[in-house]
This record gives sequence, structure tokens and C-alpha cells, in this order.
Amino acid sequence: MAAVKKRGKAAGRKGGGKSASAASAHAGEVARRNAAQDDVVVSQIRDAATEVHRDILKQSKPDLAFPVRSLKNVTYSQQRGFFEMGRAKKVRTLTVNTVKSFAQTLRMMGLSKELVETNDFATKRDAYYQSKNWEAAKFDEQAESDAVMDDIEALFSTRGTSREQLRFIPDEHGGAVAGRLVVLDPDRDTGVVERIDCTRFGSGAYSIPSTVEHLSFETDAKFVLAIETGGIFQRLQSHKFWQSSNCILVSMAGVPTRATRRFIRKLSDECRIPVYAFVDCDPYGISNIYRTLKVGSGNAAHLSQFFCVPQARFLGVTPADIREYRLPTHPLLDVDITRARDALKNDPFFKSHKPWQKAMADLLEMGVRAEQQALAKWGLNYVIEEYLPRKLANPAQFLP
Amino acid sequence: MAAVKKRGKAAGRKGGGKSASAASAHAGEVARRNAAQDDVVVSQIRDAATEVHRDILKQSKPDLAFPVRSLKNVTYSQQRGFFEMGRAKKVRTLTVNTVKSFAQTLRMMGLSKELVETNDFATKRDAYYQSKNWEAAKFDEQAESDAVMDDIEALFSTRGTSREQLRFIPDEHGGAVAGRLVVLDPDRDTGVVERIDCTRFGSGAYSIPSTVEHLSFETDAKFVLAIETGGIFQRLQSHKFWQSSNCILVSMAGVPTRATRRFIRKLSDECRIPVYAFVDCDPYGISNIYRTLKVGSGNAAHLSQFFCVPQARFLGVTPADIREYRLPTHPLLDVDITRARDALKNDPFFKSHKPWQKAMADLLEMGVRAEQQALAKWGLNYVIEEYLPRKLANPAQFLP
Repeated sequence: MAAVKKRGKAAGRKGGGKSASAASAHAGEVARRNAAQDDVVVSQIRDAATEVHRDILKQSKPDLAFPVRSLKNVTYSQQRGFFEMGRAKKVRTLTVNTVKSFAQTLRMMGLSKELVETNDFATKRDAYYQSKNWEAAKFDEQAESDAVMDDIEALFSTRGTSREQLRFIPDEHGGAVAGRLVVLDPDRDTGVVERIDCTRFGSGAYSIPSTVEHLSFETDAKFVLAIETGGIFQRLQSHKFWQSSNCILVSMAGVPTRATRRFIRKLSDECRIPVYAFVDCDPYGISNIYRTLKVGSGNAAHLSQFFCVPQARFLGVTPADIREYRLPTHPLLDVDITRARDALKNDPFFKSHKPWQKAMADLLEMGVRAEQQALAKWGLNYVIEEYLPRKLANPAQFLP
Repeated sequence: MAAVKKRGKAAGRKGGGKSASAASAHAGEVARRNAAQDDVVVSQIRDAATEVHRDILKQSKPDLAFPVRSLKNVTYSQQRGFFEMGRAKKVRTLTVNTVKSFAQTLRMMGLSKELVETNDFATKRDAYYQSKNWEAAKFDEQAESDAVMDDIEALFSTRGTSREQLRFIPDEHGGAVAGRLVVLDPDRDTGVVERIDCTRFGSGAYSIPSTVEHLSFETDAKFVLAIETGGIFQRLQSHKFWQSSNCILVSMAGVPTRATRRFIRKLSDECRIPVYAFVDCDPYGISNIYRTLKVGSGNAAHLSQFFCVPQARFLGVTPADIREYRLPTHPLLDVDITRARDALKNDPFFKSHKPWQKAMADLLEMGVRAEQQALAKWGLNYVIEEYLPRKLANPAQFLP
């Protein structure tokens, strides 16, 4: 656990100005929490492996039990606020037929342990290529190694550990962030904490790293505004909307990536600030982007506990806004109509929220959709000067 | 020109430390250059409109001449280093049939002038929705307004002015940047220059804004490394590769966006540092990502003068690397083979560079491709500890 010790020792050397000692104490606390978390992960992996080892010594067949990942094995509690995995398990027993995938699963868990201990990380693709040196246990196709990683992720998620904590990171772009937020990021070698002030990026922004578990935050912002399009984000950022309204802007660029969702969740949890979603008014914006951000998706419920933002609320664009702001619209496409009807009929989230049922039904009845940039009809900066201030005066009216 | 004056006055107030006055002078210079550029754009728009106005007063039919945008109207000079537009023009004359699109073109030019004068910007989508208040000149579909914008872009590109200088910005993600670079970004209202130090983003990065015309740079880096995948970028960033090798890392995330290409070009031009591309070894990485970055694409040659990076060179992964580093490979797909053969037969870039012809032919003969993350076979950090240092010891051997 060399890496962990190193971090604990060096953490929080930086700070600067009056709050140096407070920042240092905070950074030290974060380093301790991260190190403790790493210890938990390593012992979870060791426990799982020890059980297999014990079975082998007893000359009985070892097995690993993975949670079933499907809609049938999902529960939704209004109180918890997101999709959760049920108790159904599939058991993989070591036999002649399963020996290769069983060995691969153990090697992959071993890789994870090594990554935690050296304070490093790997993408799915990295892990696949690493296996090329595992001799008989090497993967022939990345699809195979991805499937093993998904199983391991589901296995450890039942112990409260995420894939990112196992140090397997996504190979995708993070979202962009600007506004009243300082991100604290301890250096992986020295533990020295970098203070990243998201008010200081001009027209640019902070790009969220692939994994955010090690980050912590300082902010006095009143809310997080999660934005669908890069265009609206750039407008709000260039005009420093975060300054006048004391908030943090996050660009999701469509359906938010894992890192972006986790970043928003951690930020909202740790700093206790609400999250408002600002997306297009169409079934894709509402059901795919917002619903995924807030409660997760059916076939990946084992992720919800880490990635969902149950405290998110829907600022707009709402079907009612289309009328109230006389927005230019496009007709709903067939795919929109199917998606909306499906949500009303089958989606536990929409089924449990009356205001959403009404809003979706309204949208279907109007037969149109509107993009958030449609507000530009009333002037390019109408969104900043009129729409958002009016909306933000009444957060209680946001859709759930 | 209120905005321009404001910027000129306030620019460069910030700085900090020993280099405050130098930074201030530099920022002042940048503000002056930006303001002068804006003046040029406004007078180009005014000139084009004045000509139309004069024709109308003379009771003759006004017209606008747009360059033809097609492969047939493209020239490639080795010396200039990128595809250039030829002299073929299509003329749009004001008649009963063209009155609407003619009016729309002029309104769109008017919008551009307004944007420059108020120091603001609009996406394609913003412009479309703005037109909803243009009464008879409003666009019915965004495809129409996009086409008019493309024409205007081509028209002004013959005068050396880019779409971004006309203040029409893309609605897309910028790339991520980390390393030995300070970005100077003047505030659009106050002109105060923000100094963004790209060594100070922890495991995160600087996210390039949608438009970069107003940015300038300070750096002592020896090269820019333009990287295809987010995974490799994250590895090099988290391990501070930019520190040990004194460079700037840019994540392209596939084919780089306009803003990312322009950012790299400006950075390389203004700071006189070479650009090395590090992408997958397959026809897509070589022909689509690298070729587009370096010389542009056939059907958008009017962009090349602003977006191409003729000084870029190809570090890897090369077909020779596949053998030398014994990389795990995948078989070439049919689409790969078609793309490679097409490049050898029809692409002026590949036809004019012998080393590329040989490399592409080698790849076709081997019948395989390799991803940059394939280096992980030799260890996750082999790319940092072995591959890149060995390559960087011999930049003269990079493919052209």
C-alpha cells in the first residue's frame, strides 16, 4: 500500500492565502478518506479471492455469484430515488467448461488490486491489451474482456464499490465545467493538492477527468445547472451567467458520460446543492438525458447508486414553456412519439410521477418539440436575461 | 464599435508576479490585434452590402459571387501544404426566384455584423432561430440557414476571414488540453485578461472554447502532442508526461473539431512549435484524423487556410511500429481496405508523399491494424516509459 501511504503523508501541502491551513486540513481529510476507501477495495478483492482459494484447498468446486443484470431484476423505490438491483444472482462454478473465463475473472480482479495498490488506472481497452500477456488466460476479443469487467463491476457493486473505485475508467470525454467552484485534486505521486478555480477559465472551461473519485470540492454556489448543448453552455459561460446567478455550469453534451454524472452526483451530495437540468423539450431530452441523469437506466441498475442524481430537478424546456414563450417548434418524429408512449406505459419513473405524466401527455397532444436554443427567437441573450431568471425565481415549480 | 473600444481600454490589467508588465503589454497587443481584425470583418461586410446597394440604386440586378465548393475546385500545393480553393464561382443574381434566399443572405451578413459590433456570437442553430423574427426572410428549416451560412463562410474566406471571425461558432465540444502552456483569454466585457495555466488542472484538463480567435499563448514547450483517444490522453495527463518531456497534450477525441484544429494551428503558428500526431495505426486514424488535421478535406477546402496544421507530423502508431513493437492487431476491415486504396489512388496528399505511399502499402500487405492502446500489452505505462521517449529521440523519422 505504498501509494496510499505516500498520499497520506504529502497531502495538503499546498493551499495559499488565508485559508491555507483550512484547505490543508480539508485536503488531508480527503487523502485519508481516499486511502481508507482503497483499503476497503483491496480487502473486498482479497476476500473474494480467499473464498475461491479456500474452496480449492477443500477440493470442492469454487464459484462466484454475480447479480443478474436485467430489467426483471430491478426495483424502484421513490424514497431511494433511483433504480436498484434486485437479489437475483447467476453463479459461475469452476468446471472444465468455465475454467478459462473463471481464470480470466480472477486475473481481472488481480489487475484491479494491482491498480489500486500502485494508484494507477486502466481503460477497458487497456485491460484487454494487458491480458495479451496472460498466456492461456488472454482474451481473444475485447467484447469478452468487457463482459468480464461488467460482471466484476456488478459483483463489487453489491458491496458498494464502483468500477472507478476498482480503477477501471471509461475511455470517453468528460463534460465541461465553469462557475463558482473550486475542485481539489490530489497529485497521484506526491499527494500535493491542486486547487482548480472554475471561475478562472475565461471563455474556456474545466474538463472533467475520466474518473472523479479522488476529487473534492469547495463552493458557495446555490445550484448546479446541467446543460444539454455545447452552444447554450458556451453562451452562459462567455456571459458569466454563473457570476450573476451564483451557480456552477456543467455541459453534458447530450447524454452525460459516466464521469460527468458521477461528478455532478458527488458535487451535489458533498456540497448539498440542488441540480437543475436544462435540456431540449423532446422525449429524448426528457426521457434519455434527464431520466438517465436522475434515476439511471433499466439495464444498468447496478450503476445507479453511484451515478444517479436523485436530487436533480427539471428546469426546462417544459411543454408548458413552448406555449408560454411562444417557441418555434418542430413536429414530433415517429421515434419521439414511440419513446414518449413507451415512457408513459412502461417506465417506473414516469409512472410514479403525476406531473411528468401530464407533461408527456401534453407534449404528445401538441405534437411538437422545441430545442433549448429556440429561445434565441427572442434575442440571443434572452435565455440569460429573461428565461432563466424567471424560471429560477420559482424552483418549486420545476418538474420532479 | 463600442465593444472593440472597451476591450482596447481595459485589456491587460491583470498579470501577476514579475512578468506583470510584459504580460500586460502582450495582452494589450492581443486586444489591439483582435479589435483591428474586427474592424476588417465589419468593413468587408459593409463593402459586400454597399456593392449590392449601389447596383439597386443604379436599377441593375445585384448579385453575389460565391466560390464553388467541390473537389473539382481544389488545388494542392506542397509549398502551402494544404488544400486550397480554386477560382470557380457561382453567381446568385437577385431575381423574382431568388429574392428570398438573397434577402436571407443579406440578413445573415447583417447578423454577423451585429455580432462583431456587440462582441457576441451565435451557433448555426441560434442563427436559424433568430431568423424566426425576420418575417418574410425567416428560414423554414435549419438546413436552409446552414447552407446560407456555408455560402457566406466561403464568400468571406476568399477575403481571408473565417466563420469564427464572422462570429458564427460551432455547437460542439472543444478538445482537452494539459501541459506547459498558459492561455491568455481577454474577458468579453471588461477586456481583463485571464491567464490560464494548463499545468494546474490536476487530473482534469482545460476545455477549449467553441471559438479561439481571441486567445493567445505563452509557452516554452518543445512540441504539441495531438492524441486520438481520451484513454491515452488521461494516462499521459495523470502521469504528467508533459512535465518530463516539456510538451503540451491535446486530446482530439477522434476527428478533431473545428475549435480544436484551429487551437492547435494558432498555437503552433504563434509559438513556432511543431505538432506531432499520435493516433491509431489504421486507415481511419491516418487518412481521416491525421490527414484532416494536417491538410484538410476535399469538400471543405475553403476552411484549410484557417484550420489545417501543415506543420503537423506523424509520430505513430506507424505500420513499422506494429512489427517493431510486436503489437497485438486486428484484421483490416473491408472499409479499411477501401479507404486505404482510395487514399493511394485519389488523394493528392498521399500521392505527393512517397513515405506515406510505402506505409499505406505496407499496412495493406500486412492486412492488420493496431490501436494506440495496444502498447498496453507491454505494461500500462510502457507508452510513457519506452515508446514515446524512443520515438521523440528521432522526430526526423516521423512520417510527413
